[in-house]
Amino acid sequence: MTLAQQVLSGDRLALTRLLTQVENDSPEGRAALADLFPHTGRAQLIGVTGAPGTGKSSLVNQLALHVRKTQNKRVAIVAVDPSSPFTGGAVLGDRVRMRDLSGDSGVFIRSMASRGSLGGLAQATATLTQVFDAAGYDLILIETVGAGQSEVDVARLAHTTIVVEAPGLGDDIQAIKAGILEIADILVVNKADRPGVENTEKALRSTLELAHPTGRVYRHHGQYVPVAASVSLSDNDEGGDSSLKQSTQSDTSLWIPPILRTISTDGTGIAEVVEAIERHVAHLRQSGDWTARERARLESELEALIEAALMSRFREDVSTEKYDEVLERVLSRKLSPSEAVKLLTNGTRV
Amino acid sequence: MTLAQQVLSGDRLALTRLLTQVENDSPEGRAALADLFPHTGRAQLIGVTGAPGTGKSSLVNQLALHVRKTQNKRVAIVAVDPSSPFTGGAVLGDRVRMRDLSGDSGVFIRSMASRGSLGGLAQATATLTQVFDAAGYDLILIETVGAGQSEVDVARLAHTTIVVEAPGLGDDIQAIKAGILEIADILVVNKADRPGVENTEKALRSTLELAHPTGRVYRHHGQYVPVAASVSLSDNDEGGDSSLKQSTQSDTSLWIPPILRTISTDGTGIAEVVEAIERHVAHLRQSGDWTARERARLESELEALIEAALMSRFREDVSTEKYDEVLERVLSRKLSPSEAVKLLTNGTRV
Repeated sequence: MTLAQQVLSGDRLALTRLLTQVENDSPEGRAALADLFPHTGRAQLIGVTGAPGTGKSSLVNQLALHVRKTQNKRVAIVAVDPSSPFTGGAVLGDRVRMRDLSGDSGVFIRSMASRGSLGGLAQATATLTQVFDAAGYDLILIETVGAGQSEVDVARLAHTTIVVEAPGLGDDIQAIKAGILEIADILVVNKADRPGVENTEKALRSTLELAHPTGRVYRHHGQYVPVAASVSLSDNDEGGDSSLKQSTQSDTSLWIPPILRTISTDGTGIAEVVEAIERHVAHLRQSGDWTARERARLESELEALIEAALMSRFREDVSTEKYDEVLERVLSRKLSPSEAVKLLTNGTRV
Repeated sequence: MTLAQQVLSGDRLALTRLLTQVENDSPEGRAALADLFPHTGRAQLIGVTGAPGTGKSSLVNQLALHVRKTQNKRVAIVAVDPSSPFTGGAVLGDRVRMRDLSGDSGVFIRSMASRGSLGGLAQATATLTQVFDAAGYDLILIETVGAGQSEVDVARLAHTTIVVEAPGLGDDIQAIKAGILEIADILVVNKADRPGVENTEKALRSTLELAHPTGRVYRHHGQYVPVAASVSLSDNDEGGDSSLKQSTQSDTSLWIPPILRTISTDGTGIAEVVEAIERHVAHLRQSGDWTARERARLESELEALIEAALMSRFREDVSTEKYDEVLERVLSRKLSPSEAVKLLTNGTRV
């Protein structure tokens, strides 16, 4: 049996081994990924993101626990840990995360160290997600830390993106938040037993009004385009209850991110978040957005892989000597960077 | 006179025009960049980074004001504004920034909208910086917002990186901060008149001890390597006072980031920050790190340009029809992403 077949047959140890192979981008991992790919596309991907200190990790744990208790679904957690881009070491270990969920064979938790490049990180997360998807995990929770580009990458990856806030992490509405709110499908104010929860919620609500909820966009051929303007996405819509399908096109713009309060330490509000996720999935299927997100995700994965393939071929084709020689000429200002690129890339075309 | 010549002659209007051309990556902008490149390499680049709410912008303004008052240096500010990666609109306009510094012809302020891709943003910032460098600006302050990858990109770009913190933005020492501290050459606790300043400083100090200050690393051929381990960087050391050059190699590891308190609203502590910047530059020249940072910066710029060139050639060589056909087969799970990449990139080699 190949590693891929072992994973498909539900071998947990094989799964662990494959995840490592895939993280290391080994030839065996790549081969297995290709074998597994036809078995993907069934899992529901949920991105959970927010600043450090919002209690995001325990919220993710609670969501997993709740789903395990109330539904017959297998759950995977991919935790992209806060760590230095330089050292690459994961700060938060798997062991800490395992306490509440350990012993449940329907749950698999994988912590990932965030590597140097964020593009690489999104790529690595995408492939891990595919492995879990093929291995039969129905729900995949992808937890990221930080602000900015990583959130955007999660949004591109997930069907549903949850943005977590908490009271007392800086009262002024920070301009940067508007960008994060634009990718949110569900907003959660965690630590809702803390003072200032009303202010946080109010601030979120007013920022949300600025970040027009209809403006969810996708990358199409490297360009960001609004979903409504992208080509005939609803033509490919296969999912969803047909009785709900009255207004396929217009519904695309109808999802307004709910703002929900939770206390993840005692489980308050968790059921409501799970319910909101289900409503959002129904909306995605009904509006054709599910297919649109699948397309956007696979397209951006394809782009990243193409970029990596072109760069690795470039490194094969251009000798270190030539590269260093050209770099020296740039350093001494005899050659501009763009002239250097011409010199180096023309050599690869022959 | 070409646009580049006008810029070199000190034409402020031509400079404004060129910056726009460069930001839009126009053919005229590219040509001018190539003409200007031999005139670069003189400016001192200072990155200023930190979370929203730290008062980073007014700190940058104060630094510029102080340098203008006390030194005969021209100052440029490149403000990478907080803005949505989707809408691309700058939140903080040039006009607000200009108030204190307007009318001073030795200062030029440019706000940049942060675009979709962070790689692209770093690239655009790098080229703007080159224009200011060639145009004779001695000091270039590059201000970025956010956390994570953008800080790393600033560090790669700047000679000196200042990380700004402020009391009361979340008391727990967040794991993610360790990564930011690793890129800091100077730490500033701004808003030092606020309660909690001692705690913030203490927290920074203990995190700093974890984030070993010798571990400053650079990207070399796409790999992160410690400066000490990278090849013969000090061989190329040209700058610096020779009388200070006793211990070229060992001094590389001797810079310990100072922690300084400022109140940017009234200018408290600004002189000390400027002094620390000068000490750091002296250290860079003495240790050979100046050349190392120049090399790392130009090398990562070259890599980004090569990547962009390869991708744009790929888009020329592969028809939209073929690309879409392959993408459809990936979407229907008939082809794995890596098989798709092979199919698409082999086509470009012929």
